[in-house]
Amino acid sequence: MPRYAFKIEYHGAPFCGWQRQAGGLPSVQQSVEEALARLEPGDHRIAAAGRTDAGVHATGQVAHADLAKDWQSFRLAEALNWHLKPQPIAITACAQVPDDFHARFSAMERRYTFRLISRRAPATHDKGLVWQVSQPLNAEKMRQGAAHLIGLQDFTTFRSVMCQADSPVKTLDEIRIEELDYPGGQEFRFYLRARSFLHNQVRSIVGTLERVGAGSWSPDRVADALAAKNRAACGPVSPPDGLYLTAAGYPADPFA
Amino acid sequence: MPRYAFKIEYHGAPFCGWQRQAGGLPSVQQSVEEALARLEPGDHRIAAAGRTDAGVHATGQVAHADLAKDWQSFRLAEALNWHLKPQPIAITACAQVPDDFHARFSAMERRYTFRLISRRAPATHDKGLVWQVSQPLNAEKMRQGAAHLIGLQDFTTFRSVMCQADSPVKTLDEIRIEELDYPGGQEFRFYLRARSFLHNQVRSIVGTLERVGAGSWSPDRVADALAAKNRAACGPVSPPDGLYLTAAGYPADPFA
Repeated sequence: MPRYAFKIEYHGAPFCGWQRQAGGLPSVQQSVEEALARLEPGDHRIAAAGRTDAGVHATGQVAHADLAKDWQSFRLAEALNWHLKPQPIAITACAQVPDDFHARFSAMERRYTFRLISRRAPATHDKGLVWQVSQPLNAEKMRQGAAHLIGLQDFTTFRSVMCQADSPVKTLDEIRIEELDYPGGQEFRFYLRARSFLHNQVRSIVGTLERVGAGSWSPDRVADALAAKNRAACGPVSPPDGLYLTAAGYPADPFA
Repeated sequence: MPRYAFKIEYHGAPFCGWQRQAGGLPSVQQSVEEALARLEPGDHRIAAAGRTDAGVHATGQVAHADLAKDWQSFRLAEALNWHLKPQPIAITACAQVPDDFHARFSAMERRYTFRLISRRAPATHDKGLVWQVSQPLNAEKMRQGAAHLIGLQDFTTFRSVMCQADSPVKTLDEIRIEELDYPGGQEFRFYLRARSFLHNQVRSIVGTLERVGAGSWSPDRVADALAAKNRAACGPVSPPDGLYLTAAGYPADPFA
């Protein structure tokens, strides 16, 4: 059975997250599996690079599936997009990959972007696509706070108590914070890169750094919170609306 | 009566456009006037820099209104935003201005941005916020076509037959076309600047340049279409979804 990799974009709002869950909203995984079943009847189970939470968006999720037929990848993507309509899920790239490619286990890197807006007036075009706060934020202080988190660390403070990872020790390779013009306010984009992330890690980090930007936390308090290795030392967890899984990296780019 | 200028952002989809119209969808103007009436009962009539069409967005519309009370501008914006909820309209700046300031007649410049996406997969996060086509486009050819339109020209070809302007002769100061990365495709941003625009001028220009980018029109055919001074020579008019009124310029910035 040939194996295919898919690059997937989705709007997180109408879904319970990537993973299938009992009851409630549909999952992105389920929607893609059902679209696959329209092409080749039967049960399809797909694996993905990142198990995004409810409300979290993706522009570069990667998943793989085994199919019976030898599909031309352009036609496969077109057919899936047809069956995914009108759900806000799009297959933006598709390629046949070696049998040992695994979207989750072969991934060497994940990248997330978080969009944080500071302004008094409510968002219009960006509603649901950003986290909005009303107080001005200091990018330089957020960068100072973020610097404490880079490298090999015990991220117990910055992971959900529900996190199922064996170890809280992870290497965070990058947090870059960009400040952009935004009508009537400020926009901050946080770019995070790591081999893998813990459950709620990005939202815990961004929620904490927002406190630093607002002046409620000193940048050094981020180091203290990390050293505490205690979930209670974390700042507030940000809402999911501003978070995007933008890329997964593999030894060889499956879509190249 | 003190006069106030407002910078206004809105999502065009739920409105019949800026201007009040009999029947159908509400207008942005009406929504803002009704919010003003919640602050100071009575009839309010506001004038704006650009009378955007149904479905057209704004990030930098400017309007003015006369009020009875001496409002602190921060509080006035906050109160209006409160009463505008949950409509996708936001007052992003507010300032008291001289009595001779007129949002429409004092404006020396308008700026529009048009977002055009080329990819096969349907838009998710950007649905309703861009014009999407499926064929690849050539930015350089679109730039060559656009160059024919710069300067003082008779834009009869590029205005709606409904256009009420006295003259079709206008000076188009700039069309800058930027190409950006977009997941699974291309994004083109058209930046247009002029003292004033004719009805449907931007959408007629972008719709025509898209034909050039797709290879159906040669860049020189844009010059021929312009020279024809005939609406029938225009390419297709683009949909409103990708169009944003981003700024109006005045002798002195009212919000500075």
